[in-house]
Amino acid sequence: MTELTEIKKQDLLYQGKAKEMYTTNDPDILWVHYMDQVTALNGKKKVQMKDKGKTNCAISARLFTELREQGIVSHFIEQLSPTDQLVQKVQIIPLETVVRNYASGSFVKRYQTEYLQKFDQPVIEFFYKSDELDDPFLNDDDALALGAATREQMAQIRQLALKANQHLRQIFAKMNVLLVDFKLEFGLTAAGDVILADELSPDNCRLVDLDTKQSLDKDVFRKGLGEMVPVYEEILQRLLKEGER
Amino acid sequence: MTELTEIKKQDLLYQGKAKEMYTTNDPDILWVHYMDQVTALNGKKKVQMKDKGKTNCAISARLFTELREQGIVSHFIEQLSPTDQLVQKVQIIPLETVVRNYASGSFVKRYQTEYLQKFDQPVIEFFYKSDELDDPFLNDDDALALGAATREQMAQIRQLALKANQHLRQIFAKMNVLLVDFKLEFGLTAAGDVILADELSPDNCRLVDLDTKQSLDKDVFRKGLGEMVPVYEEILQRLLKEGER
Ligand SMILES: Nc1ncnc2c1ncn2[C@@H]1O[C@H](COP(=O)(O)OP(=O)(O)O)[C@@H](O)[C@H]1O
Ligand SMILES: Nc1ncnc2c1ncn2[C@@H]1O[C@H](COP(=O)(O)OP(=O)(O)O)[C@@H](O)[C@H]1O
Ligand SMILES: [Mg+2]
Ligand SMILES: [Mg+2]
Repeated sequence: MTELTEIKKQDLLYQGKAKEMYTTNDPDILWVHYMDQVTALNGKKKVQMKDKGKTNCAISARLFTELREQGIVSHFIEQLSPTDQLVQKVQIIPLETVVRNYASGSFVKRYQTEYLQKFDQPVIEFFYKSDELDDPFLNDDDALALGAATREQMAQIRQLALKANQHLRQIFAKMNVLLVDFKLEFGLTAAGDVILADELSPDNCRLVDLDTKQSLDKDVFRKGLGEMVPVYEEILQRLLKEGER
Repeated sequence: MTELTEIKKQDLLYQGKAKEMYTTNDPDILWVHYMDQVTALNGKKKVQMKDKGKTNCAISARLFTELREQGIVSHFIEQLSPTDQLVQKVQIIPLETVVRNYASGSFVKRYQTEYLQKFDQPVIEFFYKSDELDDPFLNDDDALALGAATREQMAQIRQLALKANQHLRQIFAKMNVLLVDFKLEFGLTAAGDVILADELSPDNCRLVDLDTKQSLDKDVFRKGLGEMVPVYEEILQRLLKEGER
């Protein structure tokens, strides 16, 4: 393995909607650049926003670090600059894993339940990661038929997602924030282990202030509720304050 | 329990899209009348068709009888007339259970796979039985959150659906017909057992002639491929011929 101090950014591997992924001189390590861009509706709505990248980069680094302390392994290696990180390269399992504690978003749309209705147990849903197909909802049999994941991998993903949920709920609760739902991505390491990848930020979480019930996440952008970056910065500030205690 | 010969039709309990369900003088028994009506798109497309009711009534009676001989309990009690049956009253579990052997219908639409692509393992999908919501797709966690079924009931449904699939595939194969997919409904008896209910007919199955690859099911109506009832009668004739051997 290359010494971390000797890692150099190389080619753009993937230009995503929120991040750029670069190869490095170590084949097992990627260089992630968080962009000042936000999209919704699978990229159909796209806006540039100053300081969005560095805010998400910092929140993600912090949450991955907290989860690591709880024994949940992720791809996160270290922060390089306000907008750049080194991560372990994985083969992304093409399932977007959504964990829901309260009804919101597509759940409410599909089943016409009440917004923020509490679930007795967290609800996990998989969506097939495919921009062309618009990330369709699927079940375990579908995922198997499509070759997206094995039953064992889905069982591991569920276990890790539920464990992450427990800790994230607590972290946000201390910040006076309700963790309504969030989306995770998992990947396979060269050794075949399933680990947490991608990012953990208000782009992929639904967060609601416990007192005001206001959204503190990308719904601010999706629903045009006001300035988004100050809301993300508020989440980062509460996280940092919580960390100081 | 009332003697079957003394069962009398009473009030219309439920006017469905394909059948009318009547109460009888036995609280545990319903009187089903198969109507000469076919609908698609959740009732938005609706047509009257002579002899459709009796054809489906006969096919359904036959298939439930064959499944019973294989140990799969259903609500079917007996045929009363060409269009009428007695069935055991159950509390319908609001999950439409779809078993897929080959890709078709909404699976192909959602995941853009090839029509009639074979699955290594049968794929089971649940849809939430709700006309208002347009029968949305759901997974086990959703079904639990919505109170549609318990985990144990879903496990039993899967087991029964797979067993029914094995036998139905064989029955249709002998008739030179491919069982592409089909929809089942299950219900709870007063004793709390999960049994097969509703109907088993070309209204709820995708059937394809093994040689011509033509649809022998409701897709003829959905896609406007020609006269539907003669196709259903063809299925009934092949079933009866198979039974004679
Ligand atoms: N550790 C990793 N190794 C390889 N790919 C990753 C890793 N973490 C995230 N990715 C992938 O890189 C992309 C990140 O960029 P993003 O802008 O979020 O993309 P997208 O537009 O697909 O959401 C995603 O497709 C994600 O699946
Ligand atoms: N054994 C049974 N006991 C009670 N209800 C039943 C039984 N079998 C079927 N049903 C219900 O009766 C209705 C049958 O009529 P149908 O025309 O198929 O209705 P739908 O328009 O809801 O599909 C369905 O709603 C079905 O769930
Ligand atoms: Mg992304
Ligand atoms: Mg029906």
